[in-house]
Amino acid sequence: MDVGIIGATGYGGIELIRFLQKHPMINNIILYSSTQEGLTIDNLYPHLENESKFVLRSLQYDSVQDEVDTLFLATPPGVSAQSSEALIARGISVIDLSGDLRLKKQAIYEKWYGRTAAESDLLNESVYGLCEWNEEAIANARLIANPGCFPTAVLLGLAPLVQAGIIEMNSLIIDAKTGTSGAGKAASQVTHFSEMNENFKIYGVATHKHTPEIEQELERWHGQPVSVTFQPHLVPMVRGIMATMYATAKKPLETSDLHKLYQDAYQDHPFVRLGQVGAFPQTKQVYGSNYCNIGLTFDERTNRIIIVSVIDNLVKGAAGQAIQNFNIMNGFNQTTGLDQTPVYP
Amino acid sequence: MDVGIIGATGYGGIELIRFLQKHPMINNIILYSSTQEGLTIDNLYPHLENESKFVLRSLQYDSVQDEVDTLFLATPPGVSAQSSEALIARGISVIDLSGDLRLKKQAIYEKWYGRTAAESDLLNESVYGLCEWNEEAIANARLIANPGCFPTAVLLGLAPLVQAGIIEMNSLIIDAKTGTSGAGKAASQVTHFSEMNENFKIYGVATHKHTPEIEQELERWHGQPVSVTFQPHLVPMVRGIMATMYATAKKPLETSDLHKLYQDAYQDHPFVRLGQVGAFPQTKQVYGSNYCNIGLTFDERTNRIIIVSVIDNLVKGAAGQAIQNFNIMNGFNQTTGLDQTPVYP
Amino acid sequence: MDVGIIGATGYGGIELIRFLQKHPMINNIILYSSTQEGLTIDNLYPHLENESKFVLRSLQYDSVQDEVDTLFLATPPGVSAQSSEALIARGISVIDLSGDLRLKKQAIYEKWYGRTAAESDLLNESVYGLCEWNEEAIANARLIANPGCFPTAVLLGLAPLVQAGIIEMNSLIIDAKTGTSGAGKAASQVTHFSEMNENFKIYGVATHKHTPEIEQELERWHGQPVSVTFQPHLVPMVRGIMATMYATAKKPLETSDLHKLYQDAYQDHPFVRLGQVGAFPQTKQVYGSNYCNIGLTFDERTNRIIIVSVIDNLVKGAAGQAIQNFNIMNGFNQTTGLDQTPVYP
Amino acid sequence: MDVGIIGATGYGGIELIRFLQKHPMINNIILYSSTQEGLTIDNLYPHLENESKFVLRSLQYDSVQDEVDTLFLATPPGVSAQSSEALIARGISVIDLSGDLRLKKQAIYEKWYGRTAAESDLLNESVYGLCEWNEEAIANARLIANPGCFPTAVLLGLAPLVQAGIIEMNSLIIDAKTGTSGAGKAASQVTHFSEMNENFKIYGVATHKHTPEIEQELERWHGQPVSVTFQPHLVPMVRGIMATMYATAKKPLETSDLHKLYQDAYQDHPFVRLGQVGAFPQTKQVYGSNYCNIGLTFDERTNRIIIVSVIDNLVKGAAGQAIQNFNIMNGFNQTTGLDQTPVYP
Repeated sequence: MDVGIIGATGYGGIELIRFLQKHPMINNIILYSSTQEGLTIDNLYPHLENESKFVLRSLQYDSVQDEVDTLFLATPPGVSAQSSEALIARGISVIDLSGDLRLKKQAIYEKWYGRTAAESDLLNESVYGLCEWNEEAIANARLIANPGCFPTAVLLGLAPLVQAGIIEMNSLIIDAKTGTSGAGKAASQVTHFSEMNENFKIYGVATHKHTPEIEQELERWHGQPVSVTFQPHLVPMVRGIMATMYATAKKPLETSDLHKLYQDAYQDHPFVRLGQVGAFPQTKQVYGSNYCNIGLTFDERTNRIIIVSVIDNLVKGAAGQAIQNFNIMNGFNQTTGLDQTPVYP
Repeated sequence: MDVGIIGATGYGGIELIRFLQKHPMINNIILYSSTQEGLTIDNLYPHLENESKFVLRSLQYDSVQDEVDTLFLATPPGVSAQSSEALIARGISVIDLSGDLRLKKQAIYEKWYGRTAAESDLLNESVYGLCEWNEEAIANARLIANPGCFPTAVLLGLAPLVQAGIIEMNSLIIDAKTGTSGAGKAASQVTHFSEMNENFKIYGVATHKHTPEIEQELERWHGQPVSVTFQPHLVPMVRGIMATMYATAKKPLETSDLHKLYQDAYQDHPFVRLGQVGAFPQTKQVYGSNYCNIGLTFDERTNRIIIVSVIDNLVKGAAGQAIQNFNIMNGFNQTTGLDQTPVYP
Repeated sequence: MDVGIIGATGYGGIELIRFLQKHPMINNIILYSSTQEGLTIDNLYPHLENESKFVLRSLQYDSVQDEVDTLFLATPPGVSAQSSEALIARGISVIDLSGDLRLKKQAIYEKWYGRTAAESDLLNESVYGLCEWNEEAIANARLIANPGCFPTAVLLGLAPLVQAGIIEMNSLIIDAKTGTSGAGKAASQVTHFSEMNENFKIYGVATHKHTPEIEQELERWHGQPVSVTFQPHLVPMVRGIMATMYATAKKPLETSDLHKLYQDAYQDHPFVRLGQVGAFPQTKQVYGSNYCNIGLTFDERTNRIIIVSVIDNLVKGAAGQAIQNFNIMNGFNQTTGLDQTPVYP
Repeated sequence: MDVGIIGATGYGGIELIRFLQKHPMINNIILYSSTQEGLTIDNLYPHLENESKFVLRSLQYDSVQDEVDTLFLATPPGVSAQSSEALIARGISVIDLSGDLRLKKQAIYEKWYGRTAAESDLLNESVYGLCEWNEEAIANARLIANPGCFPTAVLLGLAPLVQAGIIEMNSLIIDAKTGTSGAGKAASQVTHFSEMNENFKIYGVATHKHTPEIEQELERWHGQPVSVTFQPHLVPMVRGIMATMYATAKKPLETSDLHKLYQDAYQDHPFVRLGQVGAFPQTKQVYGSNYCNIGLTFDERTNRIIIVSVIDNLVKGAAGQAIQNFNIMNGFNQTTGLDQTPVYP
């Protein structure tokens, strides 16, 4: 197959390249850029020397269907809202890594993102690409809204619990921590090394864009509207997300039963790992890989369940899950091209 | 005045030295060590060269009252439980930085610490040294239980809220993050650089010793028993604690009113800083100083209050607060010897 | 083929596992441990869950030849000196990652390592596995002394220069910087996170064990004894080595000619990357991969050549090069199982 | 005394504030800014809340002499070259932290800095403020060129050696490492956290502006022109410089004699610390303080002397040394306002 990446020069883009160029079912990769055409990717990213000699080229809508079967969009807000329709109309499968197409309700999008939403038809067409829980729809989709990094960690961590109906939904508090690469390649004061190292920051207090995305998917499972507290923080590290999640149990239970619930839910899903009963994951255990590690416990003192979920935000939280979606759409084994052992230590 | 430190070679101990040697009311400092007597402190800690030529000596109970007026105990578990009585009996004021004397109920101590508690008389004698909220008792005390690092950040962050009675007490969730220096000087696998850098860890899930300390003090303000979820995490940085705290409001309120509540509570307390309405602190803003910075908001979507509190765990969370207690006990201005500007960046 | 690892639980060992388990020519991997037999590797290293279910077993010399064709020794000092003879006598190919067999002269070994050297016969039998410069001997070897991490970066950086005979050999100064993972898995005060983060250290001043290893190989190319200054430092990062090397040119030259010299030397070596004329590498550009990136310049002001060489100390500086040796010994393409794109950022 | 800072909002500026506001001989501090007048400094830097309520104001040349006795210029290139003359003409003492006035020869400045040099008269008027070696001239100066961060570490490390005339001057190689704060407050791709953490970089290869500054001062001591190799690197940490320096000895000597030479040179200089014979410093040992720590050895194998010098680049390498100059100019004890114990760990 032939695939293309629009926005290949950001962190999501180069992470796509890392995996796609070793993907056994891919024949040809084309990198599109509207601003840096003519450059080779290893000029911008010397770590890709000897690996990738791709020359960035500009995308021609008229002929793009002759060049690629699937397009990955690792683009700034607004791009996929405007261009996806034309692309799928040309028979190209589109996997969008931006936030443009994740929220089904335009009003919600416009409130949280502060910009015009995509057309309803496009939003209806797009399938939310949470691979472990939406496999059938993904297999039949031609337009995927690849989940946000935080929602991926959060939803994989909460799904069995919510679907089992054993928690008070209004009690959900999600305290999330991320490395800086989620903020992208552009330098900023917040992620200036001198301001970020030996520092721990909170941001987007009660206002983070990923909140409605989490709520939308929880509602789908719960059957009713859900409001959660979702609170991100910035950790002085580059890669990794941990979501620590707190929920009140409807009635007391055993940690071992909880563990069993999750084991059953994820036994056929190779990228979700549970560990031993009572063990909790660290972000480094998934570094550079497509895994999501989950740990949990029931605290009888407070009647609360604590679930901890970790991912590599650039892999399972972006490029890796996008390729997992690609695999599902094409009937490949989900792990094809993604069998990367975490880099440790 | 003449002061001594027992356990001067740990991180709490050398932080005490950093402040005490510049304290204008202190005449003489004596460092006691049972295992390294004869060494000078700058042999162990070259950063103290030209600063401190203290020779570690062994403590003689018979004559210690001739050497010091006040003793700081930066000792391992059990030491102050066993030795404080003898010290205060000799007329020495004792400020204990360990966890031995913080919990008033022996059964609670023994459950969470897994070791024999101190004598009841000693526990009754000891005053919990949370300076901003216990000033009068501290001024009259001869034995201080210096608060734990997490409880300091948490209690300063929650006090006005709890005392105002405007939150559902059983809704309290405290998600805390700390640098590695809280784990002390001893090398371990957990804090091995290769395992800790570019990594974010959760630990002590639902079992951390600081939980009952937080609950005890909240109960004092609330008037009834309180159960909280307190969950610590380890950040790849050396110094700093952030506590992110979530509480359901009894009824909707305005963030500006909340801010005013805190301003009133802390206006006479030079070490607690509130910032602007809507601003949130970062750990680096208090680096190396005795400040506690607090930010807060009311989220009307979820009816929850979010309070964020940061301290330097080795200063306000240990040595700095110990000296603040020393100042109060002796009628000095609280900031004496502690007017250290945060080191930034 | 079937391979085994002795000492699989150290950082060198798990890095061998990361690559070997995806190596297309390897059938079976056996992990030997004398102290942790019966455990599975993912109990010790949860990042390997779902990846590797190897149970550690004890090595039986009588039957090991029935289990494996090649053994990788990632063992503490002394082990391979004592056991290699027995292993190769049983027809097993041995690749030793320790420092036991690198120095040909026993007296030199004993002076720098402070312990008894291996038998002369064994030292004569062993081939120094610097793949890019010793390919033929490696292809015919049954015992490989895998180069040290620093010597790998240094020798790859200096080889073309020394072989061209264009520098004053006695002018060579090598200032090297390494991440902490080179110090291994064992926790220590030096690599305690609280002492290592936000800190830069020098160590082994004028006494590092890798000095004679560098000199031995330089002498081989130069034809006469060589004395170099080799000085390592410890960087607050986990992975990566940079060697900055200074040499006086015999006569003035052009940077572009130097670059050409290196291009010619390495054009058939896929793991050595030169970049553009005037570009210099960073350690992160090789993170997690088997690459060595080199940059260089001639400074006409001082008549000195500056060469900069970076590797990932655990890959090209240890496990990766070991597997590269394995590939050469077995006639496989050198990149087999090693085509890992650097993880960036 | 009343002092002012121009350029107070950069890292050099806020470090000046940290020390000056606790300086016992300073009455009043005025912060000048041409772009942010009207703001208070703690709006820009929340770590200064409760500490500094300075409102930034614009500088009026006509009346500045009524406001301040001394001005610290922490300004971008070109500012002090253009404004110093007017300031000293008004009777104000000027301490310039920029590179404008350090190089005496205009041609050298213009070659290395790539911009027009200051007037000769101004360059002749300015005194190079390396406190430990230029005390008398500083005491009589009205215009100080505060040394660069690297030259401070390097020159303090080399001075006794060069003045004793015991090394081959043309053999000097200086390999320097710095934290990121030396690059200032402005965000950039190089110091973007995601690109800088877990990374080690070389920069300014054979072209760094501090090279001629080092050479100029060495020449002053040596009596003849000197060419050195000076090569900086960027460490993933915020504060700290280490300079590792290599020089060939004219004839063999003993490390203990070298140590004695340095002890004699620095015995009356409280900010230079030598440690034990054979001990080497780490950057963290001077964190946040005005110390320079030095270690050294003679390596008889190579006949080279290795000297290691560490400073905090923002203190001894910038603001701290500027205040030390201020103290000398005003006849205060050099340590006044600078007796800050390093923050460790």
